[in-house]
Amino acid sequence: MKRILTGITPSGYPHLGNYIGAIKPSLDLLDEKCESFLFIADFHALIKVKDAKLLNDLTFQIALAWLASGLNPKKTFFYRQSDIPEIVELNWVLSCLTEKGLMNRAHAYKAAIDVNKVSNTKELEEGISLGLFSYPVLMACDILALNATHVPVGSDQQQHLEMTRDIAGKFNRIYGETFNIPEGVIGAEKTVLGTDGRKMSKSYNNVIPLLSTEKELESTIMKIVTNSQEPGEKKDYVNNILFDIYSSFASAPQIADMRQKFDEGIGWGEAKKIVYKDLNETLEPIREKFYQLQNKKSEVEDILKENSIKVREFTMPFLDEIRSKIGIKSL
Amino acid sequence: MKRILTGITPSGYPHLGNYIGAIKPSLDLLDEKCESFLFIADFHALIKVKDAKLLNDLTFQIALAWLASGLNPKKTFFYRQSDIPEIVELNWVLSCLTEKGLMNRAHAYKAAIDVNKVSNTKELEEGISLGLFSYPVLMACDILALNATHVPVGSDQQQHLEMTRDIAGKFNRIYGETFNIPEGVIGAEKTVLGTDGRKMSKSYNNVIPLLSTEKELESTIMKIVTNSQEPGEKKDYVNNILFDIYSSFASAPQIADMRQKFDEGIGWGEAKKIVYKDLNETLEPIREKFYQLQNKKSEVEDILKENSIKVREFTMPFLDEIRSKIGIKSL
Repeated sequence: MKRILTGITPSGYPHLGNYIGAIKPSLDLLDEKCESFLFIADFHALIKVKDAKLLNDLTFQIALAWLASGLNPKKTFFYRQSDIPEIVELNWVLSCLTEKGLMNRAHAYKAAIDVNKVSNTKELEEGISLGLFSYPVLMACDILALNATHVPVGSDQQQHLEMTRDIAGKFNRIYGETFNIPEGVIGAEKTVLGTDGRKMSKSYNNVIPLLSTEKELESTIMKIVTNSQEPGEKKDYVNNILFDIYSSFASAPQIADMRQKFDEGIGWGEAKKIVYKDLNETLEPIREKFYQLQNKKSEVEDILKENSIKVREFTMPFLDEIRSKIGIKSL
Repeated sequence: MKRILTGITPSGYPHLGNYIGAIKPSLDLLDEKCESFLFIADFHALIKVKDAKLLNDLTFQIALAWLASGLNPKKTFFYRQSDIPEIVELNWVLSCLTEKGLMNRAHAYKAAIDVNKVSNTKELEEGISLGLFSYPVLMACDILALNATHVPVGSDQQQHLEMTRDIAGKFNRIYGETFNIPEGVIGAEKTVLGTDGRKMSKSYNNVIPLLSTEKELESTIMKIVTNSQEPGEKKDYVNNILFDIYSSFASAPQIADMRQKFDEGIGWGEAKKIVYKDLNETLEPIREKFYQLQNKKSEVEDILKENSIKVREFTMPFLDEIRSKIGIKSL
């Protein structure tokens, strides 16, 4: 049986890019017959978030976003990474057989080095934590502690999955068959553009929040960058930010309709109104559910806690098996 | 109250260097009024030992060596590192605020790089695991998870203690006063020479085993490197390996006596017989106790397990406090 695992890091408030890019495709995947695991990666968030209150709130908001988007915690194991201590134990175990050189090649580390290169005042490694450097191993443990078979990956994460496969294979060769070599489910994650045309990301300050009020949503849509063509001029929908954003959530007939309106020279303001209206309709049920859940913090906590107990019914004996294979066990 | 913590890595069978250099001075320290913690660092051993049976046996032998040497597990918390999951959890937490650059400067990592430099066929980082690279943070967690105040350190480990102090200080600055800044108990550990005059170490193949038979002990002593001076010639006891080894365990009158015999030109064979006889007398009670305990594996296991339960009475609420300070907690 397929065992699909997805993690989401609570390092920013949920936005449309998360919903369209990760939440919706992940939930759509689950129509198939499979076991599915979805976790909030609070240990990963620690790399960036050093404020306890913020981290706790982000964890809550991410949980709300998934539940409001239709995640069914009776069908999907929905848990918090930090409630599964087996993951951080495995993290040390696998660190001992992962070559440091593998980490030197990780994208996130190299990107951080590049940022320091550009700013001449800094040492190359300044501000780069051991956590940032070594997190591909923790990510491998998220996957391997559950012995997942399938992992939805965007293009940025294919390298991490490759590393996970390397590490799992190495463990199996040294200590005997233990881990599945997980496969990527490619195309399951989509990239959504932000209001400035770059990938939607909190770091670019170009996000459309998932859980804003109607007013805020409208004002964000109005800020999407367009060119200065007048109403009546034919608009090109190829490489158009507004059209791309619309295409990421709208239905096929809606998209065809918008394409025609572009041909007919719709004004940007009018087009944005349609985008806002249709997006608002998409988000309305999520927003409704979100407001209901927001006041039920302890229920959300109970969902995460109960799920973690079920997850540990797997991870605890699995770690016992691993400990026994490596010699970390009772005398 | 002082809280002293010592760890020993089961990566080799216990030898005289461990006994004289670490076990005895650690036990002697405990005459003072203090809480003392002593652990078998099996997670650290994983960096080197990839054979489950060997690691399990080494863990047992190290436990036997300490118990046979007089460790009282009712007075000292004597436990196995891997029985305290809070340590590996803290390891991730502290990785997120430790600069990677700090690890670049660690002795063990630099020494491994140097070995690769000498062998031209290798990449600089070949064979160096992420575990080897990052173990000073795990070592910091061994100390900080117990909030120890004092750590006996040999000269090789002073750097690690400095790193621990750095990391503890940084956590306290970011998240508020949490950790004691541990102090080194310097001079508590002694360096003992091996049969070839280098530091006694399993990696140099120059050890005098702690738990060998009398025959084996005699034969090891006979192999200690000496010069080719004949009996009757005056021997220099300065920088003499045999004399140094003798001085590491013998009593002051015994040492004075040996010095006189060197002046009088004792033959090497005769001197070695005295060294053997006196060392054998020192080790005999340890060997006796060792043989008794060797057949009581489950009693030794019980000691470690019971102690780990007591240790977790401290580490579990302490980690709760830490989680709450960093935002890894219930909603």
